[in-house]
Amino acid sequence: MSEPTDMTNLCAELQTIWHRTIPISAQMGIEVVGSDDGELTVKASLAPNINVHETAFAGSLFAISTLAGWGAIWLALRARQIDARIVLTDGHIEYKRPVAEDIVCRCRFDAAVQAPNLEQLVRTDSSFFPLTCTINATGRRAVEFEGEYAVRV
Amino acid sequence: MSEPTDMTNLCAELQTIWHRTIPISAQMGIEVVGSDDGELTVKASLAPNINVHETAFAGSLFAISTLAGWGAIWLALRARQIDARIVLTDGHIEYKRPVAEDIVCRCRFDAAVQAPNLEQLVRTDSSFFPLTCTINATGRRAVEFEGEYAVRV
Repeated sequence: MSEPTDMTNLCAELQTIWHRTIPISAQMGIEVVGSDDGELTVKASLAPNINVHETAFAGSLFAISTLAGWGAIWLALRARQIDARIVLTDGHIEYKRPVAEDIVCRCRFDAAVQAPNLEQLVRTDSSFFPLTCTINATGRRAVEFEGEYAVRV
Repeated sequence: MSEPTDMTNLCAELQTIWHRTIPISAQMGIEVVGSDDGELTVKASLAPNINVHETAFAGSLFAISTLAGWGAIWLALRARQIDARIVLTDGHIEYKRPVAEDIVCRCRFDAAVQAPNLEQLVRTDSSFFPLTCTINATGRRAVEFEGEYAVRV
């Protein structure tokens, strides 16, 4: 069962960590909206992330996706009292349509799917977590990101 | 044969376009170093792109790679008096080792390899250009980026 207050505090801590240790994330205006049942939502205004076509810059869309995946793992581990080093090792992103509105990125950490990876982490202090993050625009899928994260305790 | 002065001017124009129309590229401190025989070199200081591990942020490494590829195409087209819209549609990035130094990204636009794509662009006003960008750290390959760019006149 989720504990809403704890999760709210963890989400606030996550955003603080990002802005303090990854200064460009603050300049992109990346904020944690919240986490609901394993799904983390992260947002950023379009303005600081605009590109030459007046839509969201591909690099910003990748950065926000990277952080959403990182954050989803961080939250899942913190909820299990695991403090680990999380590093993106491989990322694939598909830009299906331009994003001409504020950026909202979602990433689900599916505990059932990730159970073998979590078990491996507990057993060996090292594991990999593949995650998918998505961004919609005008209600349709605009960005699909697949990241593989290496995690070490 | 390359025309050094023209290429120097084009590189300066490229950087101006990025900083003016993609504000986050200026905040990342992304600069055009130059282009030599079809190979564009782009750099950024580590400081504004630092992450929680005190190495370069994955999102910044992707952003600089994206722009290096975009710039390599832009330069190749401008040298041929083609003014086109260039959009990244698909990106894959592999992080092989951390980057704990200033970021230097290289991207070669190989005219012989890209000849069929250029011909298609001239014939149909629309084409795709696949490109590889790389970043080394301590002299070894740290990042490998493969991007597919859609180009329309």
